[in-house]
Amino acid sequence: MRVLFNEEMKQIADDLDTMAAAVKAAIDGAGKALLDNDIDAAQSVIDGDLKIDGLEASIIDQCVQMLAKQSPVATDLRIVVSTLRIASTFERMGDLARHIAETARRAYPDSAVNPAIRDLFEKMQDFDSHTAGEIISILQNRDEDRAEKLIVNDNKLDELHTQTFSIINGEDWKGTQQQTIDAVLIARFYERIGDHAVGVARRIVYMVSGFDPSKDPTPLLAGGLDE
Amino acid sequence: MRVLFNEEMKQIADDLDTMAAAVKAAIDGAGKALLDNDIDAAQSVIDGDLKIDGLEASIIDQCVQMLAKQSPVATDLRIVVSTLRIASTFERMGDLARHIAETARRAYPDSAVNPAIRDLFEKMQDFDSHTAGEIISILQNRDEDRAEKLIVNDNKLDELHTQTFSIINGEDWKGTQQQTIDAVLIARFYERIGDHAVGVARRIVYMVSGFDPSKDPTPLLAGGLDE
Repeated sequence: MRVLFNEEMKQIADDLDTMAAAVKAAIDGAGKALLDNDIDAAQSVIDGDLKIDGLEASIIDQCVQMLAKQSPVATDLRIVVSTLRIASTFERMGDLARHIAETARRAYPDSAVNPAIRDLFEKMQDFDSHTAGEIISILQNRDEDRAEKLIVNDNKLDELHTQTFSIINGEDWKGTQQQTIDAVLIARFYERIGDHAVGVARRIVYMVSGFDPSKDPTPLLAGGLDE
Repeated sequence: MRVLFNEEMKQIADDLDTMAAAVKAAIDGAGKALLDNDIDAAQSVIDGDLKIDGLEASIIDQCVQMLAKQSPVATDLRIVVSTLRIASTFERMGDLARHIAETARRAYPDSAVNPAIRDLFEKMQDFDSHTAGEIISILQNRDEDRAEKLIVNDNKLDELHTQTFSIINGEDWKGTQQQTIDAVLIARFYERIGDHAVGVARRIVYMVSGFDPSKDPTPLLAGGLDE
C-alpha cells in the first residue's frame, strides 16, 4: 500500500510540474503574441489552454482518488490539499495568458500595444515570465526560501500596474479608444498572473512547512490572494 | 464518531452558507457604492472583506481537519472537496465586490460611472446580485436543477460585458479617461463575479450528483471557469 501511495504521489507531483511548465510556456507565448505581434504564438497559446485545463482536471481527479483510497494525514494530506489548490490557480494563470493572446489576435495585424505603454508591458511580461520560471523551480525543489522571496517581491508588479493608469491618464497618451481598453485589460491580466503566482508560492510554503504565510501578521507578507 | 462527523459537516455547511450570505451582501453593497455613490456602503464592503477572508480560512481549516481525522469517502468526500473549492471562489467574489467598492470610493465625490454606461452597469449589478441570491438558495437546498439553470444563463452576462466595449468605443462616449479606465475594470469585475458564481453552481452540481458539468461536451455547458 505504501509503495503504491508513494508512486501515486510522485505521479501527481510530476503532473503538477508538467502543468507549471505549460503555464510558463503560455505566459511566454502570450508575450510573443502581444509584444512581437506574433499571430502563430497567439493561436498556439489559445489552443494550448485546453491542455492546461485537462491537466487541472486530471490532477484534481487524482487528488480526490488519493483522499478516498489512501486517507493521507499530516504532511501528505497537506501536499494533496495544496496540490488541488495550486492546480486550480495554474488553470487560471493559463486562462489569463490566453486572454493576453486573444487580445493580440483581435488587434492583429495592428498591435494592441500603443508605443507609449510598450516599455511597461515588457517589464510586466518579464516579471511574470521570471516568476513562472521561479515557480517551476521552487515546486521541483520544494524551496521555501525562494518561495518567500517571491512573495515579498510582489509589490514590484503592483507598482508597474499602477504606472499603467498614470500613462493612460497622462497628456502624452495618444492611443485609440480600443488601445486604451486593451491596455487596461492587459495590465490587469499581467497583474493577476503575478498575484496568482504569489498565491502558488504561499501554498508551496504551506505545503513544505505547514505554515501559511498569508496568515502572517507582518505587513510585508499581509494581503491575501486577490480576485 | 459518526455523530461527531455529522455535527462537523453541519458546521462546515453552516459556515459556507454564512459565507454565501456575506458575499451577496458585499455584491449588493458594491452596487450601492457604485450606482448610488454611497461612500458608507463602499467603506462597509471594503471593511467587510476581512470577514469573508476569515470565513474562507476557517472553512478550509475545518475541511483539512475533517479529511485528517474522519477520512470521508464517496459523497462526504465530494462535499468536503467541493466546499474547499467553493470557499476559495467565494473569497474571490468578495475581492471583486471590494474592487468595485474601491473604485467608487476613489472617484468619490464624483461618480466612477459615466451616465452613458449607467444602465448597463445596473443590469450587470442586478444579474450578479440575483445570481448570488440563487447561489445561497441552491446551496441550502442542494438544488441541482436551479444550479444548472444558472450555468446556462451565464451567456447573458457575457453579452452585457461585450456591450461595455461597444459603448466605450462608440461615438457618443464622452467619459473622461479615468471613467473609461473605471468602466473597463468595473465591467470586468462584474463579469468575473458572475463567472465565479457559475463556477460555484458547477461545483454544487458535482457535490450533489458526482457529475461535473464543466466536462460536459455540449457547447451550452462548455467553457470552464475563467481567470
